[in-house]
Amino acid sequence: MHRIGLHLLVVLFTVLLAAPQTAADEGMWPLYTLNKLDFTKLRARGLELTPNEIFNEQDGGIAAAVCQVGGGTGSFVSPEGLIVTNHHVAFGAIQQQSDVDQNYLHDGFLAPTKADEIPAIGYDVYITQSFRDVTKEIKNVLKKGMTDLERYKAIEKKKKELVKKAEQQGNVRCYVSTAYSGLQYFLVTSFRIQDVRIVYIPPQAIGEYGGDIDNWMWPRHCGDFSFLRAYVAPDGSSAQYADENVPFRPKKYLPISSGQLNEGDFAMIIGYPGGTSRYRSSYSIADNVNHYYPSSIKDMTNILRIMDQVADEDPMAAIRLAGRSKGINNYLKNQQGMLKGLKRARLLEKKQAQEKELTAFIAADPELAKKYGDVLPGLAKLYADRAAYREMDNVFGDLSWICRYYNLAHTLYRWSIEKTKKDMAREPKYMERNVDDLKRGLKETQFSIVPAADQKLFEYLALRALRLPAARRIAELDGLFIVGAGDDTTRAIHDIASAMYEKSKVGVLEDRMAMFDLSTEELLALNDPFINLARDLYELDLKIEDRDKAFSGALEQLQPKLIEAYAAQQQEMFYPDANGTIRLSYGEVKGYAPGDAATYKYVTTLTGIIEKETGEEPFANPQELLDVYASGDFGDYVDPTLGDVPVNFLTTNDGTGGNSGSPIFNGKGEVIGLDFDTNWEGVVGDYYFDPEIKRSICVDTRYILFILDRVYGAQSVLDELTIH
Amino acid sequence: MHRIGLHLLVVLFTVLLAAPQTAADEGMWPLYTLNKLDFTKLRARGLELTPNEIFNEQDGGIAAAVCQVGGGTGSFVSPEGLIVTNHHVAFGAIQQQSDVDQNYLHDGFLAPTKADEIPAIGYDVYITQSFRDVTKEIKNVLKKGMTDLERYKAIEKKKKELVKKAEQQGNVRCYVSTAYSGLQYFLVTSFRIQDVRIVYIPPQAIGEYGGDIDNWMWPRHCGDFSFLRAYVAPDGSSAQYADENVPFRPKKYLPISSGQLNEGDFAMIIGYPGGTSRYRSSYSIADNVNHYYPSSIKDMTNILRIMDQVADEDPMAAIRLAGRSKGINNYLKNQQGMLKGLKRARLLEKKQAQEKELTAFIAADPELAKKYGDVLPGLAKLYADRAAYREMDNVFGDLSWICRYYNLAHTLYRWSIEKTKKDMAREPKYMERNVDDLKRGLKETQFSIVPAADQKLFEYLALRALRLPAARRIAELDGLFIVGAGDDTTRAIHDIASAMYEKSKVGVLEDRMAMFDLSTEELLALNDPFINLARDLYELDLKIEDRDKAFSGALEQLQPKLIEAYAAQQQEMFYPDANGTIRLSYGEVKGYAPGDAATYKYVTTLTGIIEKETGEEPFANPQELLDVYASGDFGDYVDPTLGDVPVNFLTTNDGTGGNSGSPIFNGKGEVIGLDFDTNWEGVVGDYYFDPEIKRSICVDTRYILFILDRVYGAQSVLDELTIH
Repeated sequence: MHRIGLHLLVVLFTVLLAAPQTAADEGMWPLYTLNKLDFTKLRARGLELTPNEIFNEQDGGIAAAVCQVGGGTGSFVSPEGLIVTNHHVAFGAIQQQSDVDQNYLHDGFLAPTKADEIPAIGYDVYITQSFRDVTKEIKNVLKKGMTDLERYKAIEKKKKELVKKAEQQGNVRCYVSTAYSGLQYFLVTSFRIQDVRIVYIPPQAIGEYGGDIDNWMWPRHCGDFSFLRAYVAPDGSSAQYADENVPFRPKKYLPISSGQLNEGDFAMIIGYPGGTSRYRSSYSIADNVNHYYPSSIKDMTNILRIMDQVADEDPMAAIRLAGRSKGINNYLKNQQGMLKGLKRARLLEKKQAQEKELTAFIAADPELAKKYGDVLPGLAKLYADRAAYREMDNVFGDLSWICRYYNLAHTLYRWSIEKTKKDMAREPKYMERNVDDLKRGLKETQFSIVPAADQKLFEYLALRALRLPAARRIAELDGLFIVGAGDDTTRAIHDIASAMYEKSKVGVLEDRMAMFDLSTEELLALNDPFINLARDLYELDLKIEDRDKAFSGALEQLQPKLIEAYAAQQQEMFYPDANGTIRLSYGEVKGYAPGDAATYKYVTTLTGIIEKETGEEPFANPQELLDVYASGDFGDYVDPTLGDVPVNFLTTNDGTGGNSGSPIFNGKGEVIGLDFDTNWEGVVGDYYFDPEIKRSICVDTRYILFILDRVYGAQSVLDELTIH
Repeated sequence: MHRIGLHLLVVLFTVLLAAPQTAADEGMWPLYTLNKLDFTKLRARGLELTPNEIFNEQDGGIAAAVCQVGGGTGSFVSPEGLIVTNHHVAFGAIQQQSDVDQNYLHDGFLAPTKADEIPAIGYDVYITQSFRDVTKEIKNVLKKGMTDLERYKAIEKKKKELVKKAEQQGNVRCYVSTAYSGLQYFLVTSFRIQDVRIVYIPPQAIGEYGGDIDNWMWPRHCGDFSFLRAYVAPDGSSAQYADENVPFRPKKYLPISSGQLNEGDFAMIIGYPGGTSRYRSSYSIADNVNHYYPSSIKDMTNILRIMDQVADEDPMAAIRLAGRSKGINNYLKNQQGMLKGLKRARLLEKKQAQEKELTAFIAADPELAKKYGDVLPGLAKLYADRAAYREMDNVFGDLSWICRYYNLAHTLYRWSIEKTKKDMAREPKYMERNVDDLKRGLKETQFSIVPAADQKLFEYLALRALRLPAARRIAELDGLFIVGAGDDTTRAIHDIASAMYEKSKVGVLEDRMAMFDLSTEELLALNDPFINLARDLYELDLKIEDRDKAFSGALEQLQPKLIEAYAAQQQEMFYPDANGTIRLSYGEVKGYAPGDAATYKYVTTLTGIIEKETGEEPFANPQELLDVYASGDFGDYVDPTLGDVPVNFLTTNDGTGGNSGSPIFNGKGEVIGLDFDTNWEGVVGDYYFDPEIKRSICVDTRYILFILDRVYGAQSVLDELTIH
């Protein structure tokens, strides 16, 4: 139905990817670079498919069954648009459909017929249709002597034009993706499915077994899977939820393996990894290791502490805060792992040593010196300049992100200004093509607003702001919180904040949605304290925004040159960093040693689930599972080698966030599991791939089938699958 | 010098310990029961010593070298009173001798000669001299028809008399220990050494490597050792620190092994384990699993959160709070492991099943029914009755323990009353023999007082108290914090507390020590708000104290009968719970599987230390260690099997808190390491010994020697040791 036109790219990469020499199973490879991989070696490891069967421009190969959904990856597993993905990817959908009386999140959900399926509110499915190299178009708008900010804005403007033009064909969503930090640009066109429905989700106690405690950890025991279905208009076009819609018929759908899996077996993942930073300079690493992560970890810890305090005292607040708290926890734990991993890997020192060698290599050749001589010094200056604003920007960033009242007020105020501009002159978030999403977001956020928690967070951030060094303070906040010399600062802030939260209406759904339609003048006439704060901080916000854009503009010029210089030095080109586009990684089923004196096996078992059972969340199994375990009758899902039902397994495949829900294939191209996490020791893989410790954590399809069949009798789902 | 007179006991246990049938390596055995152990089996496992060489009444055997120190265990390793124990056991001593300029805690300490040794302030060494069965004397004072409280008080009075009489010989400290929860009582007489000095302590980064993160955990990499020296008066009698004092000459001192250690090797621990609860009823377990631990964990978490907040904002407060924070963290993590372990082991269900069988067994025999028929129902009632006071007592207990100002005021007020009584009528803590310690404690606590933190904790506890159900509220606190209907409770409490902390002088050292000498009337005349609070809560305090005593009195009657009933049912007697008296446990060097898909090796290595290095506490190694590692020259301390320096190892030996610093012996009676922790999965061992997962964590003597020799050149210490 939709052609995948990647021929242009193949040509380009033939030049760039001269000889990929990366270690072990490193790399998330763009599909158009498949012919650069050593298939003789891959065949020796167990791959039975040809490059063509994996991906081709005509029928798409098995890759055509892989889609983007809910920030993660899904894959079609039936001719009628049935998608399998992670439980945690569908989490938000099921949460929105749950309440105290009908708690699908807690109990799980099964639609025995299509008529019983319920909408996955806010969920879209994207299927990549084509990539087009637009590097030339972008580079054409750049002029010598542009400032960094001008460069950023010129690129942004061109991107908007390219997207606008491409979307004119209708029925598609486009964006321009950046490869190698700005060496190349691609216009990505996707088919967007807007009617997504929930077919099956296991109880949270299965889908999220182990919760925050086990998150990022191995050994793991998660039934992290769910089934959704994609619907389109009867004519096959993209359409919002409607009764008349029909199941989407994918170009390809995938068979599910129920066969044995052993350590050493070949494994391949196709998915949409979000972003890695493997070619960063030492200055960026230093910034993260010495400043960003430590301060962010401290900050997130404090923020969680405040949210927990409110949640402890109010059960309903606990429910409302759960999603955010889970998200921040996930983020915090990831950052802790990242920082620990960066230090253990001594990545800063390694990068510094590499850059020393690179500098010598560049200096030795006058032509290279002319081309690349200013790259590393330029990066050094860029990060040094930014250091002066770091703390202030962090506080301001947290205020915008953490304090919901300010965030909402800021969006409303900004929108009132942006909407007066011509569409192409607006910030992307406020362009016509995004206004529906913007409005939907402002509405759907209501559930998670807890004024008591928000006020405490606002007070915490205000105190942090007031304690910044004098030269780096936010004058507008100083003006808001006027604290006398002898005053109790904390209490003064509390009193001012109390009055603001008392008066503001941005937290009230009807008022907020009414404000959405107001002009700036009308908004200000309300004299809402948070709208006023958004007004007072508006100039500063723009200033910081421009500073960030200038930084990105500078980076987009220097970073690609750094990669080119390394490529010249090492006589090879590298795979591009993950950037949310579809990728393939290969590897094998394998355990690991997390450290001295400890060994982890490649697989966990049903018995391991029962071992962890405590009767309390997140280790409280549903009675149905306990009963089946007690019965000892596990059907055909027992692995003969283990003598037990396999639950999760590890592979050496490269991957990162966004890969959640990705199908993982055996050599035959059958789905053996779903990727759902990276191990704690491996999260540093976003910066540095260590084949000894980086693992992808997957839920075994045999466990999925076991849950569907033996535990919950979800026959309708099983009937639809092709099980090998 | 001092005779160990245990003959009486041996007779008693010949009857009780008919045939110890405990599983695997379970049991911390009183030394006088050695002849009940199966030495044929132990010899087959590698023990080369005879029971006589381990312990005998004449020269004491190797057990005579084992002493109690700083809440843990130590052992003499030279003829001149040199003691080896854990770093964490000597922690307080070195902390008190450290300041910013001369930070021994951070840098470590070595006294090259005896003249360089510094006092271990507040440290005593106890060497057990004799046990005497005083069961009859105690039981004689019990009369039919006594209430539980009367029974408790009668026992307490008799204990005081026995101790008073026994201590009249001078130079000794005595106490009455309870075995089998009250089946037997022993008068324990110890030689107390009051002049203890610090000889060698490694830097904290070695002695406490991994800090709170690794605490209770395996794999572990701690150099948890230190050397102290015991001094006595020239005539050999116990004496306070004095220049003229001479090194104590122990009856026995122990050789240190530098030989190889392999998995499966025999291992034996002699030490002073504090307390276990392996014979508790299901009612006690239910109370702990369902109420005490969950509420205590929540509480400790909140308390730490508050302390962390203050510490975050004030570096000096952070230093002052560090010790308490470490202690509470240790306690919290232990309780978390305990609760998790109790649930995983399903101990409550197991106990309930055992009790069901026991009840049937008792009911089947009229004589047994008469003797034991009321035991389990009695225990059920006892715990049920207490449940009504649980929350109130917990808040009150926390107030007394956590809030230092109240704690100090309460002690001062109580002391002003107790000192007017005759010595034998006082609470034990306030008896003449303990007054010096009491006063010392009031003085030495000054370092850890942080009013800002204390006030926040007081406010938190007050809020908890005010939120108790109406029927269970503390009227005196309600009266203190009078909050109007419309008031902001938190703020009202804050205002009242602020005024109290502003005015009170109990936190000021000079004022407090002056208060120590005042009469009750003089104290009250000060009108100090915390002294007033202590006065207002005094009656309640006595009521709760009596309630606790009555509970103990009841338990002391019922619990021994429960053990007797089980002994009758199972036709065997069990080893007694640990109770702070000297014990022996045997086992072997062995790794374990902490759960599904994970395996832990029995030993960790120097390379593992470097693996954990991050450059930041608690994983920042001293440069000296990093240099030696980089040199690759590890002397003779490399284990040929490992090809690395061994650091910590695991054994199956039974043990618990108090065992810290205990020597662990090979079959020849040489010290192969020091016990310093239990593994996380094994902390539940206090209730239930599971041979599969309970391990003792020990520091290898080869690592101790490596640090002394290769890293810090502590030749003076090495010269004094006998190294095999």
